[in-house]
Amino acid sequence: MPFAETPQPPYYAVIFTNTRREDGGGEQGYAATAARMLELAREQPGFLGIEAVRDPALGITVSYWQSEQAIAGWRRHAEHREAQRSGRRKWYTGFRLRVARVERDYGFDNPDD
Amino acid sequence: MPFAETPQPPYYAVIFTNTRREDGGGEQGYAATAARMLELAREQPGFLGIEAVRDPALGITVSYWQSEQAIAGWRRHAEHREAQRSGRRKWYTGFRLRVARVERDYGFDNPDD
Repeated sequence: MPFAETPQPPYYAVIFTNTRREDGGGEQGYAATAARMLELAREQPGFLGIEAVRDPALGITVSYWQSEQAIAGWRRHAEHREAQRSGRRKWYTGFRLRVARVERDYGFDNPDD
Repeated sequence: MPFAETPQPPYYAVIFTNTRREDGGGEQGYAATAARMLELAREQPGFLGIEAVRDPALGITVSYWQSEQAIAGWRRHAEHREAQRSGRRKWYTGFRLRVARVERDYGFDNPDD
């Protein structure tokens, strides 16, 4: 199931959209760091889930959190801060990060599938 | 620029994550409808921008809006409603839709690029 299993709203979403350098800026380091950050995020208090897609032009990662405090804690995590610095220096040509409060949600699962 | 040019928060985000049928459920119809919905969304009052990525496993489309009223208007748009019905019937195995209020945001553009 690629969908995050989030609770009843309200909860928080961090919408991270990014573009990568064409040369990758060190592909192996990026993949290893991305995998490590995912592993680490899952261990954080207040982490609810994550949905992520990348195509050649753009990546979108949406992570879900119980509270703004949980997001702030993750942003300040020492190993995550180091990854953020590498991202700016080596991997991303640009990004946008938006913190949003999810007010309502709904879902659909096809009964034929 | 693949990033939506959004104003100062607060504004709203609709986070739409979805999985497609393996057989595509009518690929040509999907592509034409998706392109038409994008064109139509851009014409709606209160539309701010959109960011979208699809890989084989998952699609994420985030659209940005001035207000909840703008989102409600788009949801009820007749041609969009028809596309929503086709999506459930033919194209998607599942989706999640979350409406969220963007509280803060920031961005980064690499000065070397």
